[in-house]
Amino acid sequence: MFEEYDVIVVGAGHAGCEAAAAAANMGSKVLLVTMNMHTIAQMSCNPAMGGVAKGQIVREVDALGGQSGIISDRTMIQFRMLNRSKGPAMWSPRCQSDRQMFANEWRETLEKTPNVDFWQDMVRELIVKDGRAVGVKTNLGIEIMAKSVVLTNGTFLNGLIHIGEKNFGGGRTGERAATGITEQLVTLGFEAGRMKTGTPPRVDGRSLNYELMEEQPGDEVPGKFSYADTTSLTHQRSCWITYTNQDVHDILKTGFDKSPMFSGRIKGLGPRYCPSVEDKINRFADKDRHQIFVEPEGWNTVEVYVNGFSTSLPEDIQLKALRKISGFENVKMFRPGYAIEYDYFPPTQLKLTLETHLIENLYFAGQINGTTGYEEAACQGLMAGMNAHLKIREQNPFVLKRSEAYIGVLIDDLINKGTEEPYRMFTSRAEYRTLLRQDNADIRLTERSHAVGLADDKRLENVRRKIAQTAELVAELMKIKVAPEVVNSQLDDYRTSPIKDKTTLHQLLKRPQLTMQEIRKIQPQFSDYLDGFEEDAIEQTEIHVKYDSYIEKEQMMVDKMSRMEDLAIVGNFNYDKVQALSFEGREKLKKAKPQTIGQASRISGVSPSDISVLMIHIGR
Amino acid sequence: MFEEYDVIVVGAGHAGCEAAAAAANMGSKVLLVTMNMHTIAQMSCNPAMGGVAKGQIVREVDALGGQSGIISDRTMIQFRMLNRSKGPAMWSPRCQSDRQMFANEWRETLEKTPNVDFWQDMVRELIVKDGRAVGVKTNLGIEIMAKSVVLTNGTFLNGLIHIGEKNFGGGRTGERAATGITEQLVTLGFEAGRMKTGTPPRVDGRSLNYELMEEQPGDEVPGKFSYADTTSLTHQRSCWITYTNQDVHDILKTGFDKSPMFSGRIKGLGPRYCPSVEDKINRFADKDRHQIFVEPEGWNTVEVYVNGFSTSLPEDIQLKALRKISGFENVKMFRPGYAIEYDYFPPTQLKLTLETHLIENLYFAGQINGTTGYEEAACQGLMAGMNAHLKIREQNPFVLKRSEAYIGVLIDDLINKGTEEPYRMFTSRAEYRTLLRQDNADIRLTERSHAVGLADDKRLENVRRKIAQTAELVAELMKIKVAPEVVNSQLDDYRTSPIKDKTTLHQLLKRPQLTMQEIRKIQPQFSDYLDGFEEDAIEQTEIHVKYDSYIEKEQMMVDKMSRMEDLAIVGNFNYDKVQALSFEGREKLKKAKPQTIGQASRISGVSPSDISVLMIHIGR
Repeated sequence: MFEEYDVIVVGAGHAGCEAAAAAANMGSKVLLVTMNMHTIAQMSCNPAMGGVAKGQIVREVDALGGQSGIISDRTMIQFRMLNRSKGPAMWSPRCQSDRQMFANEWRETLEKTPNVDFWQDMVRELIVKDGRAVGVKTNLGIEIMAKSVVLTNGTFLNGLIHIGEKNFGGGRTGERAATGITEQLVTLGFEAGRMKTGTPPRVDGRSLNYELMEEQPGDEVPGKFSYADTTSLTHQRSCWITYTNQDVHDILKTGFDKSPMFSGRIKGLGPRYCPSVEDKINRFADKDRHQIFVEPEGWNTVEVYVNGFSTSLPEDIQLKALRKISGFENVKMFRPGYAIEYDYFPPTQLKLTLETHLIENLYFAGQINGTTGYEEAACQGLMAGMNAHLKIREQNPFVLKRSEAYIGVLIDDLINKGTEEPYRMFTSRAEYRTLLRQDNADIRLTERSHAVGLADDKRLENVRRKIAQTAELVAELMKIKVAPEVVNSQLDDYRTSPIKDKTTLHQLLKRPQLTMQEIRKIQPQFSDYLDGFEEDAIEQTEIHVKYDSYIEKEQMMVDKMSRMEDLAIVGNFNYDKVQALSFEGREKLKKAKPQTIGQASRISGVSPSDISVLMIHIGR
Repeated sequence: MFEEYDVIVVGAGHAGCEAAAAAANMGSKVLLVTMNMHTIAQMSCNPAMGGVAKGQIVREVDALGGQSGIISDRTMIQFRMLNRSKGPAMWSPRCQSDRQMFANEWRETLEKTPNVDFWQDMVRELIVKDGRAVGVKTNLGIEIMAKSVVLTNGTFLNGLIHIGEKNFGGGRTGERAATGITEQLVTLGFEAGRMKTGTPPRVDGRSLNYELMEEQPGDEVPGKFSYADTTSLTHQRSCWITYTNQDVHDILKTGFDKSPMFSGRIKGLGPRYCPSVEDKINRFADKDRHQIFVEPEGWNTVEVYVNGFSTSLPEDIQLKALRKISGFENVKMFRPGYAIEYDYFPPTQLKLTLETHLIENLYFAGQINGTTGYEEAACQGLMAGMNAHLKIREQNPFVLKRSEAYIGVLIDDLINKGTEEPYRMFTSRAEYRTLLRQDNADIRLTERSHAVGLADDKRLENVRRKIAQTAELVAELMKIKVAPEVVNSQLDDYRTSPIKDKTTLHQLLKRPQLTMQEIRKIQPQFSDYLDGFEEDAIEQTEIHVKYDSYIEKEQMMVDKMSRMEDLAIVGNFNYDKVQALSFEGREKLKKAKPQTIGQASRISGVSPSDISVLMIHIGR
């Protein structure tokens, strides 16, 4: 009853939505299959996008022509640029979102995407022919054929929800689990595992006493995620900060014997860096308090997300403990926190395109690959959608290097190292984080995405304008010289040392005490000239001038590494013939099937000497 | 972990939301328990409120201080006053709604209601003590105590979804069924039954060719539901009309052998007046086409509701048949239509307050009582919520007579006659429909509701102003006389006969050719005077003048009947002692336990002679 599609995307969370939009916007006919059309793009956990490293990913997704940035901009209720006091490599955009608006906006975006069709149903089986995915079979018994399939099942595969000693099947609270796919994939030779994640209780904002908490307002001049022409907020909602205390901990401890985590009922590993509150108490027994972020769930709703209080202890313990938190004395819960276990597939079974090694034209993206986080899911969806499209048209795969994008780091980590616990992005995972900044994702990525047909002409035009203006500004700063007698008194005002000779503005701007604001004051003609430039180019110029030595150093490292990095290993390379490899190295290489020496070098268990041996064997 | 509530409402559909809002607004502490906080107030079937008889109910709910009218006004995308060409007794407001906005608006309304708390969980058991409902037990094993419980489970109790030969548990498509309550209630002595309802496929509006359909725009001057100060639409979306044809019917027939309806797999009876398309083809074999209303699901979504095409045939047959409909040649489905079977409790087990006979302080409202329709559900919820509140405070029950409201007709029908198939309201069910108009629900009901503490002062003020203004206008119309020589040429223009003597405006307005518009032109001074009055009073005046003989006649009937109607039958009346009763009459009376002679007279199987016998025995 269906036409053959180019791409079927299974699941409509952050990964599925980006995958569908990307493939469709590149020209593929896409079918998005979701269990419930009313729950497309649900923010299952906290109502926020971005944050440290994650904000950079959203910017990258946007620079590539994905939708998460635009949708975040349209639905945010607060914006903050985290780490503004540190160097620009650490600046990380983050927003609070209106949960319902975010979902609605995604749905409307997809409905406006001409090549996306929708089908509400549960996929319980893949149709595989000659080692290729060629369609799906649904719960209604329908067979839908396609040239490729992207699985983005989130926490739904055999999802099992835990609260205290109770557990029940479900993909999210109040929603069914999905069954069938794991069992089939295991039969087909895939290795599957279990992971665990959790979420805090939601509470009634009307029952909180905000006077006992610290207000955390948005930035005075709020920014945004997208390089496209979305607008910034004109008003914002605040978050609030409070803390657990010894009383809270003591009450929580009374539930430890009923904890599904501590009792061993939960088999899957949870996200180490997003632990449950009971985990925090357990692991950091010396800390007498933990921070709690009280986050509104939208513009108008009274529902509040208790960030930092993820828990799967019995609901009565949750409530009793919450009520000991300052400001929460009379709190009412809407629903308890819970833990959820679900199936994932160790991502070492994937190629750099997120296509599986075992089944051609089958792609995995999001939590099914063992990651956690909306942003991590969204970028995988985008990359899977792009590559599914490109492969059908027999075009080159679209792969990002570790030196090009956090997305490159993420995928490279996943497929080479795998992950035993939910993988979350951190800036520390990137070797070249001075290069991978939130301000230059467009410069890094838009042209490449445009070349394969995703980022549109307007985006390309914008980034070219930004690059040209930045170059012009840098040149101008190098050209303009100011004399000591003209500027030294001002420099003194800014508490920076006087100059002895005529000095370029470029030199002055390098000083930590001077920003473009002071340069404008020092040289009013230059300030007038600057007014002819876009804000993003001015900011980019400033970053470049101030940090170019760091940037250049890192770029040199990249160049050096890339000579080795890109050295290809042919697909059917026979590791067994290379006697000099270590036993462990050989086994890991055979399993991971790296496509380049660079990838091989990052596989845990593959030693530097194994790499040397390999390089000799492939012709160096 | 919970305080004791006054009222626990189980389920957050139209009935549950009105019940919670009503009890809370009267001052009760209410807990609304829903299986999913994201699906509060879902329009599970078509995205519309009102219609013939149903529109009158929404107006009544509003006049009583319920929320459905206000929420409909805020979220509608089109408004039409049906039957405008007929007498005002038949005028019926109807709107298309934005499905998502409707749900959001309800949720926000409830969140803003100070006495409503929320809990996301499934109720699987009532806590009953000494024959009284005193709380509920949830799926999480939590016991929550309350002074009364209102069950509004919709189609969720043991819900079973059918599509062709497939069936699976579910409360709605994509949502779980609820279990436990039916089994417990049966153990407690309740009679339970199965009913069935259905819904059509949802399709992609982008795939339709509207040029082949008839446009059905909203009213040029759109009205609204609420007597409160909501605003009317300034722009609207159109619906579209198309038709099935012989080809469509032939294709549908190829699926009849797999139909769960015709095969007997579905045991429950469906709504006779909202039949599936296969039912229509089967029952009206001579009709070669059926009307299809193509209804948009909101302002921005492309999802479209195919009104008139409810079906549970296999999904491929649904699609093939749809594609033969004019304008649907290339249609794409989002999800197929389906039938759903669910448990209900024959409503003869209820009192006029919707409290059950068997368990004190337990109320049923909505589909659990065997009704169908959002409006029918909403008004029952409202009445159950009000009565739950009043009973706790030992105040008189709030009961509406058949002569006072469609709501009175509905509840009286339900508890006395019961229903074997989903009960839907029609104007023909009301004996006094000239009295029960959509324009006077406030006059009929607001003062009564205000007296028990639901309708607020502003509403009372408004209706009193309307009544006073109407009386003043009627008096003025009776006072002003016009002379033949002044008006006869105008009357001739309006094609109505000339007058011979001086005649009052009141007399002229009675003429079918003349409305208030013409009266304004005939008597410009009166027109100026009218400008000092509200639109609703002017309209009310016109209706009263034109129809007062009908209205008076019906009012006399009401008065006559009410003398008998209200004759009370004491609770423990021993029918066995009344030898003269017919056998069937006695059995029915014992089962139905009518509270008045009026109720007794409407029980099927109770003859007029039984009533005479009864009246003698109770003292007449």
